[in-house]
Amino acid sequence: MDQVWLDPAARTGIETPAVVVDLDRVDANIARMATAMRDRGVALRPHAKTHKSLEFGRRQLAAGAAGLTVATIGEAEVFADGGFDDLFVAYPVIAGGPRAERLRRLGERCTLSVGVDSPTGAESVAAAVRGAARRPRVLVEIDCGGRRTGVRPDEAGALARRCQALGLEVLGVFTHGGHGYAGSEARPGAAEDEVAGLATAAASLRAEGIESTVVSAGSTPTAILSARGAVTEERPGTYIFSDRQQAVLTGEPVDGVALVVASTVVSHGTGGGFAIDAGAKILGKDVAPYLSGHGTVLGYPEALIARIYDHHGVVEIAPGASRPAIGEIVWVVPNHVCPVVNLVDEYLVARDGRLVDRWPVDARGRNG
Amino acid sequence: MDQVWLDPAARTGIETPAVVVDLDRVDANIARMATAMRDRGVALRPHAKTHKSLEFGRRQLAAGAAGLTVATIGEAEVFADGGFDDLFVAYPVIAGGPRAERLRRLGERCTLSVGVDSPTGAESVAAAVRGAARRPRVLVEIDCGGRRTGVRPDEAGALARRCQALGLEVLGVFTHGGHGYAGSEARPGAAEDEVAGLATAAASLRAEGIESTVVSAGSTPTAILSARGAVTEERPGTYIFSDRQQAVLTGEPVDGVALVVASTVVSHGTGGGFAIDAGAKILGKDVAPYLSGHGTVLGYPEALIARIYDHHGVVEIAPGASRPAIGEIVWVVPNHVCPVVNLVDEYLVARDGRLVDRWPVDARGRNG
Repeated sequence: MDQVWLDPAARTGIETPAVVVDLDRVDANIARMATAMRDRGVALRPHAKTHKSLEFGRRQLAAGAAGLTVATIGEAEVFADGGFDDLFVAYPVIAGGPRAERLRRLGERCTLSVGVDSPTGAESVAAAVRGAARRPRVLVEIDCGGRRTGVRPDEAGALARRCQALGLEVLGVFTHGGHGYAGSEARPGAAEDEVAGLATAAASLRAEGIESTVVSAGSTPTAILSARGAVTEERPGTYIFSDRQQAVLTGEPVDGVALVVASTVVSHGTGGGFAIDAGAKILGKDVAPYLSGHGTVLGYPEALIARIYDHHGVVEIAPGASRPAIGEIVWVVPNHVCPVVNLVDEYLVARDGRLVDRWPVDARGRNG
Repeated sequence: MDQVWLDPAARTGIETPAVVVDLDRVDANIARMATAMRDRGVALRPHAKTHKSLEFGRRQLAAGAAGLTVATIGEAEVFADGGFDDLFVAYPVIAGGPRAERLRRLGERCTLSVGVDSPTGAESVAAAVRGAARRPRVLVEIDCGGRRTGVRPDEAGALARRCQALGLEVLGVFTHGGHGYAGSEARPGAAEDEVAGLATAAASLRAEGIESTVVSAGSTPTAILSARGAVTEERPGTYIFSDRQQAVLTGEPVDGVALVVASTVVSHGTGGGFAIDAGAKILGKDVAPYLSGHGTVLGYPEALIARIYDHHGVVEIAPGASRPAIGEIVWVVPNHVCPVVNLVDEYLVARDGRLVDRWPVDARGRNG
């Protein structure tokens, strides 16, 4: 009934719930994105918040990535400690309190760039790194339609000028077309919004006499679309593993993902379905509007993970459909992989159905 | 505008996002529940999956708790390592693979009981502990209406008899009226279901000649209701901190909780609201049907945390309402506190607005 994520011998050696990656699939995903970006002539700077792992980051660099993207100073510190040099914190950094000193130290030991989207943020960064031996550069974040962070594209130039006045080197502009996650029909529009917003922003900088060396866009759903205008760099993250949400968005098969949650059937309950030991503390609770339930149980197409609690997933099945035995291990494709990885301390690394290694989630929990 | 969770001097020393507890409020919550259970003459066995902390567990025992409840063998190991003796794994344990040996070792070094809800589970436990110097006892889990795990109440006796035949000592029966979380109107009914289901289950055991020493119910919403029949023990967890969901369910003020997420305003975005650095990787994504948004921003009653991403909370405010400045720290009451604690490595412990300690989340991530 199920795919061979781990052969029977390997299964007896693991404890669930656990995150299992298929290394061949991961490597294929890394190579595919690297090739696509190389063919387009743009730099690939994968978002490492998805994997938070030195080992996976190294594989991305080995395949040609220009550097890594991270979400927090804490993630950047982990990757700098691991020998990564070129890191971009794609977030509006506020370098206040103890974080100011951390940012300064980090900037002195690696090639660092950080996001800004306000004069306050720029001032905090400038104050933190003033007089440092080596200082991070900044990219101005613009809102291209996601309505999250970033300034209006036509206001990017004014903020860039302010950054320069504060003594900061402006590397360019960036955005994230997160509204491409709203559904497969939203994806092309979000990709166009990224390109159009960045073009306006780059022109806004140019009007201030500032040329953008980096024009950075990206999400997994939008990065692989072509005709990306002035974009010089893409920052997809999820592509390394993919997940249920990504598969549905892009029309790929859900069972083709490179990461699953191994879980044990712990109960048959009283309702005809079954319960697994993967709950919200490993699957997270993301449910995109175009998904039903909290993941796909591979090999049980009629099964719906209808409800999850901290440590239980309650699976409903169609009347008469087969259900796994209590004690059986089932493989769950999570809806959204990023929070899942952040909930565990290690990956179980599989190849050809055998457990070949365990790798730490090096930057787990580095939220700030 | 806001409550004094940390005074200005303390704020400059912390990094967000972070979990802050007010120790006086925690102690008051611990004392209130302990008194309520003592007055009712039932044992209190708090669920430690909420706090995952030796220090908070010790405070619960000092206030009179009989022992602790945990969700996993991993949590039990952490508390046993910390010197706790009386632990109940309120979960249908499947002691397969490496977990069998862990269960056996754990049972030899503390007074342990575990849940069973199937012959398969009972057999796995019996096989794991066979011949051990000291063995865990079992409680039969029943489903009283939550439709998660547990057998039908009238089938509890047959499973208990099976456990005895396998050489296991049966301590009694337990249930969790989780359907009391469906809304404040569901709470009394769920509490009654717990009592009725447990009475049926205890009678079912009695018909097999097995007397239940422990008849265990519990959740924070149901534990504090009176008239609890044959119940000998309650297992509430969330009461130690409370959260937005709990406050709304029980009619308590949301700003009376004992735990908040300190977060920094990182952007004003383009939509009139603001963005904070508390996203799904610290707030979790629980949204009970009777809640709007992903938490309450204290001091900003018009604010709605409308959307959260891994590292961003996007807050909408009513037109014309004031918004905090970029760089300001705001205090967020999370919807559901259990996943929040599991997403951080430490508590910032406050008293009278001052930071007095940092305590580890000892059992963070111990999912299995």
